[in-house]
Amino acid sequence: MRIVVLAGGIGGARFLRGLKAAAPEAEVTVIGNTGDDIHLFGLKVCPDLDTVMYTLGGGIHEEQGWGRADESFAVKQELSAYGVGPEWFGLGDRDFATHIVRTQMIAAGYPLSAVTEALCARWQPGVRLIPMTDDRVETHVVIDTPDEGRKAVHFQEYWVRLHAGPDARAVLPVGAEQSKPAPGVIEAIAAADVVIFPPSNPVVSVGSILAVPGIREAIADAGVPVVGLSPIVGGAPVRGMADKVLAAVGVEADAAAVALHYGSGLLDGWLVDTADADRVAEVDRAGIRCRAVPLMMTDVAATTAMAREALALAEEVRA
Amino acid sequence: MRIVVLAGGIGGARFLRGLKAAAPEAEVTVIGNTGDDIHLFGLKVCPDLDTVMYTLGGGIHEEQGWGRADESFAVKQELSAYGVGPEWFGLGDRDFATHIVRTQMIAAGYPLSAVTEALCARWQPGVRLIPMTDDRVETHVVIDTPDEGRKAVHFQEYWVRLHAGPDARAVLPVGAEQSKPAPGVIEAIAAADVVIFPPSNPVVSVGSILAVPGIREAIADAGVPVVGLSPIVGGAPVRGMADKVLAAVGVEADAAAVALHYGSGLLDGWLVDTADADRVAEVDRAGIRCRAVPLMMTDVAATTAMAREALALAEEVRA
Repeated sequence: MRIVVLAGGIGGARFLRGLKAAAPEAEVTVIGNTGDDIHLFGLKVCPDLDTVMYTLGGGIHEEQGWGRADESFAVKQELSAYGVGPEWFGLGDRDFATHIVRTQMIAAGYPLSAVTEALCARWQPGVRLIPMTDDRVETHVVIDTPDEGRKAVHFQEYWVRLHAGPDARAVLPVGAEQSKPAPGVIEAIAAADVVIFPPSNPVVSVGSILAVPGIREAIADAGVPVVGLSPIVGGAPVRGMADKVLAAVGVEADAAAVALHYGSGLLDGWLVDTADADRVAEVDRAGIRCRAVPLMMTDVAATTAMAREALALAEEVRA
Repeated sequence: MRIVVLAGGIGGARFLRGLKAAAPEAEVTVIGNTGDDIHLFGLKVCPDLDTVMYTLGGGIHEEQGWGRADESFAVKQELSAYGVGPEWFGLGDRDFATHIVRTQMIAAGYPLSAVTEALCARWQPGVRLIPMTDDRVETHVVIDTPDEGRKAVHFQEYWVRLHAGPDARAVLPVGAEQSKPAPGVIEAIAAADVVIFPPSNPVVSVGSILAVPGIREAIADAGVPVVGLSPIVGGAPVRGMADKVLAAVGVEADAAAVALHYGSGLLDGWLVDTADADRVAEVDRAGIRCRAVPLMMTDVAATTAMAREALALAEEVRA
């Protein structure tokens, strides 16, 4: 079975661990969000790609969900001593090496997809990880500030520095319109037996991937089950700031509302948490087959069960 | 008193520490060798500038003479895990931060001289440190290899990887002919009361600096005492591979021969070690005032005494 997953960071990565356990024989292609990539200290940092790579490759800081295990921070401390920031983005020494290799390869002319493949040669994540695009796309969030009025900040600044405090007035995937899917993305979708939207952020993660021209259309046209898992449970995101960025696109932080936001033109099936069992009927009525199952990724067993439910729902809508 | 010093790495840096102690009121300008600069992992590394900066700024690894004290190597280990070399160049985590800042500033358009000034704002070395040039000059060493015949390697490869094992057939300051002195270099020489060649390598350190068009002429024309200290004691370099690279330019590893290599057109005074007292007469005969004094930089006190001798010799030739 060939499965394509559109993944953001922590939620996507943890779901993928469950999916690999649920379907060990499947060929899994992960289309990774690069909208939250950022240049820091002259280095290209790809937080979502790295979270997937480290999580599936056994290098992740488990409690934190991002960054490397057994990390040290000598480089960052020294950069601070030079007065070079930003201070608010926590890059550890081990993590720096990944960004140094990536930046060096990009400077040498390799596209991000080739760089990602090279990095994965070390991590052996057990999936094929492809960035959504080799082009530069940067998710910006429009906020109101007391001093500077309305302005756009990089998503990482909104989330990591400002902790999603200010309301998001708009979410802009800058550069997306001019971007092209990375080599292999459209081919993987066309060859897929199932497409899964894990419980990643529907706006800044899955939404950024769908904003790359051609990807949404390829999924809609693939003619195979497309199944998603709600990142909203009980009216709030399980983690992250999905409620804030959903509001920016006029969507309620609600398990059913997210399914309708994707729409029946894209989604065939949708899983909500048992806490949202009362939302099932509304999604069903919209033409998206919906089930309520436990959606808290408390451990690999729970996550594996979620992946099994997603695959079962896919078979159900296929039939 | 305004003193200009042409400095390489460890020898130059240690001498400068003595000079600052010997002449605490002097304005010292250090023209640093950049011929051994190298790009590693996409980062610009300036070993000699950093050795001077760290040594005078209190950040040097004292026993080693280069690199940072209390260093760790997480980044390098990770780069190795990615299969990214070279393995033979030991960059520590703290040191990496310096190269990251430098590379980022250069990519932003700052010349190396401005970058060096910015880095020194943290280290406060107590001297003005200027790279010999803002242009790219790379010292290459021509060697004979069993497999590839005669070829040129970067100086760092010759010294750090090959430990100066193969005979040096030639030393090439690639790019020097097209380079210009960095802003402030010629002005500092013109304003100097004394110019000192510390016991740095006469070929790959001081020689590279003198290979930048205009610097040798400025020193010769300054009309002030130019005094050097021999890096060769008892027919061998105190440290490093000066004997190997001197052979490449047809100069014996001999305290007097080095003075004659610089020549009386450039040098007014020359200090040799007491072990080489028998070489004094030959240097004197060549028109370079010579003295034999202890030249082993065993500690700051011994180094300070050397600097005092150099300054005393300068006053003697001035009179």
